[in-house]
Amino acid sequence: MLDDINTLDLQYMTDIPDQQFHQNRAHPLRLELFTDLYELTMAQALFSEGLTDKPATFSAHFRNLPSGRNFLLACGLDTILEHFENLSFSDDAVSYLDSTRLFTDSFLDWIKGFQFTCNVRAIAEGTPVFPDEPLLEVNGPIIEAQIVETFVLNQIHLQTILASKAARIVSAAGGHPVIDFGARRAHGIDAAVKAARAFTLAGISGTSNVLAGQIYDLPLIGTMAHSFVQAFPTEEDAFRSFIKQYPESTLLVDTYDTLEGVRCVVNIAKELGNQFKVKAIRLDSGNIVALAAAARKILDEAGLEKVQIIASGGLDEWMVSELVDKGAPVDGFGIGTRMIVSEDNPAAELVYKLTEFSGTGKLKTSLDKKTIPGSKQVWRSEEDSDVGDIIGRVNETHKGRPLLDVVMVEGKRLPESHVPLGLSHRYALKEISKLPKQIRNISVAKIPYPVVISDKLKEFQRKVLDEIQN
Amino acid sequence: MLDDINTLDLQYMTDIPDQQFHQNRAHPLRLELFTDLYELTMAQALFSEGLTDKPATFSAHFRNLPSGRNFLLACGLDTILEHFENLSFSDDAVSYLDSTRLFTDSFLDWIKGFQFTCNVRAIAEGTPVFPDEPLLEVNGPIIEAQIVETFVLNQIHLQTILASKAARIVSAAGGHPVIDFGARRAHGIDAAVKAARAFTLAGISGTSNVLAGQIYDLPLIGTMAHSFVQAFPTEEDAFRSFIKQYPESTLLVDTYDTLEGVRCVVNIAKELGNQFKVKAIRLDSGNIVALAAAARKILDEAGLEKVQIIASGGLDEWMVSELVDKGAPVDGFGIGTRMIVSEDNPAAELVYKLTEFSGTGKLKTSLDKKTIPGSKQVWRSEEDSDVGDIIGRVNETHKGRPLLDVVMVEGKRLPESHVPLGLSHRYALKEISKLPKQIRNISVAKIPYPVVISDKLKEFQRKVLDEIQN
Repeated sequence: MLDDINTLDLQYMTDIPDQQFHQNRAHPLRLELFTDLYELTMAQALFSEGLTDKPATFSAHFRNLPSGRNFLLACGLDTILEHFENLSFSDDAVSYLDSTRLFTDSFLDWIKGFQFTCNVRAIAEGTPVFPDEPLLEVNGPIIEAQIVETFVLNQIHLQTILASKAARIVSAAGGHPVIDFGARRAHGIDAAVKAARAFTLAGISGTSNVLAGQIYDLPLIGTMAHSFVQAFPTEEDAFRSFIKQYPESTLLVDTYDTLEGVRCVVNIAKELGNQFKVKAIRLDSGNIVALAAAARKILDEAGLEKVQIIASGGLDEWMVSELVDKGAPVDGFGIGTRMIVSEDNPAAELVYKLTEFSGTGKLKTSLDKKTIPGSKQVWRSEEDSDVGDIIGRVNETHKGRPLLDVVMVEGKRLPESHVPLGLSHRYALKEISKLPKQIRNISVAKIPYPVVISDKLKEFQRKVLDEIQN
Repeated sequence: MLDDINTLDLQYMTDIPDQQFHQNRAHPLRLELFTDLYELTMAQALFSEGLTDKPATFSAHFRNLPSGRNFLLACGLDTILEHFENLSFSDDAVSYLDSTRLFTDSFLDWIKGFQFTCNVRAIAEGTPVFPDEPLLEVNGPIIEAQIVETFVLNQIHLQTILASKAARIVSAAGGHPVIDFGARRAHGIDAAVKAARAFTLAGISGTSNVLAGQIYDLPLIGTMAHSFVQAFPTEEDAFRSFIKQYPESTLLVDTYDTLEGVRCVVNIAKELGNQFKVKAIRLDSGNIVALAAAARKILDEAGLEKVQIIASGGLDEWMVSELVDKGAPVDGFGIGTRMIVSEDNPAAELVYKLTEFSGTGKLKTSLDKKTIPGSKQVWRSEEDSDVGDIIGRVNETHKGRPLLDVVMVEGKRLPESHVPLGLSHRYALKEISKLPKQIRNISVAKIPYPVVISDKLKEFQRKVLDEIQN
């Protein structure tokens, strides 16, 4: 196949060399080159046309709700603003760009001095959002606002779909703690780390991911693996050894036979008497409804009413909801794969579109992908009788609370844009609680959350459309 | 919700603080703490029991094929070996571990001097693999072999599912180039970068991801965005400006009306005559079968037979296959979301299991999750009459080619474990081509690829099972 590449001869293609690839490190520290090539070649073309500083506005919004979602929970803004504030092109990056032979010396000189000077308005992390609502509007010199597209989309998309999925599982758990066990199945290290933060925003109670714990100061939680149990002559030996070190452990009881595992815990409790401080057992396989009931019975009969039961193993919001509905005596949920890859909907249509350039509204008319021009505001009404959002032009006035705030001015974050995660977390739970019940439910709402486009914005869209078509 | 955490009081839980979170940087450079907490607490418990250096063998293998896959394409080994060779615990990491109050001073002293000294046998990147086949066996002191579990699973899982998905799309494209446009929808930056490498292994021809291009020396490809077209008074102005800079461009023609966009290209060609060097147009929306045919006709009638057509926009292997089957005049495919999140199957059941400890075979008997003990080899027969794999004990002899090779001895990579990506890529395409046709197809094979467990291995599994149950 590789030999056939030249039959297409797409632009910018270089050969795949046979010599050793230099995988510098698992994680590059600098991210200025994390961008689609066209962001840079378009920048070069705009630069050559003298359009570098012409003002543009870009909007990041979801085109629609992924199937099975009643709302999305905005997340990722903090990562974006940090990136904007620190964005510059290192000598190493410029020299790589030079090596592609796609850029002029004067453009490379310009990019060496690159600084991000745009203004940013955004909806706060932890706010439920709906299609067409700008999570983020970037306004400033077109090259600067354009060049960050790939990064903005990558991080807002990832963090928002993960926070949105976690919110569903937290809702299904009906007050029981939900723990992130997903690091091993996340799509890479960045996703695993950002997931733990997004999940915390959405209401989970802790993560097993130590690196995320360090970076974001999150509660760390861990139990034990089957391999640990297997490394000892008997299950009881393994439990004894572990609680010698960690008396308040959660013991994994399903390596061999789950209920035998529970009986081992009971034996140890009898032996240790007052010294027995085990907090919980974990069930990781089999029919959790039946096993949790049987385990609870064994524990209670031995006077171990205080020992809790944690369920894990392939759980999602539907299974958690079933366990809760059936009254299974489960005290907490460890959730892995299905939350951390948002398995039923691992992607959503987040886009970053030019809506204004040089003072003129802009839109595309591509089939099924039409956009709404201009800078916008979203007003949210939360009164029962009148719940819903209005998307309007930025300078309109409507009832309800405006959701977009200025968070960055000329490339500098406003102090209030630094929101502690604990605050965002409480804000998110409050905002979710204000949504109509059927929107908070994990089932698809029969009536979607009401979002209307203001008359003035519709009129503006028509006007811009007319200008393009004439 | 957060206030309720203490009602469960899971072990190791710290409070979510309200003060500013220190998001040090988007990407930590050091990854020793990218692990589930229990890897470290189990290490502490084993250390206290004096079991630190007891030899163990762990196997990384898929429990089953994700639905809709006939094979998986092994990928990720290079990342894993690089991590193993460089794994150590920085002062910063040790001080964070200390702050959790979960570890003894003597354990923290020990981990300061941590070096990875295990032996590793593995199946080469680019090899099609099947359930129960160890992609990787790690043999050495139990703590060392256990502590890398999260990293091994995270990276092998990600890279293998992405390479496997790309192999399907490359196969569907029937020889036409496939390009990675997925950076914006990848789950984070690590996934985007590793994806570009995994896709290249599986046969794609280039990526738009500049950072991946720099790290792995990959062919970079880019076209233009709708926003560029919108930034000019007319579509033709935008095209003229872009090709002034990049004469051999691919022009995006669907910002307003696709066929009008194609006619703009024709106008410019007439105007430029011999100076017209545009390589391709890109269709990103609408009915690609119909639009490609109409665009081809317009181009051909203007004598622009050499201008190629690239299709993009929500494509997966089924849509690519349909375009190819219907004879749509598409010369190359730009693939985004559905490849980079492996949308139909974003996760697979990759596990890392203890199979031997202190010279004794180990397995778990959890319902539906039973494992096969001991160190293994896989033999592959590729003759038409006798195609298939045998999984046996490592010291057996069978017909066929053994797939697992020693790649690391006492923590040091063997020189032959450094395989250039170009070589792995050609090896992958050759190995895939040797699979039975129905396994290579994107439809689910009626008869799965034959994999049998050797009699000796079955006997060993029975023996270990008997020992556990008696």
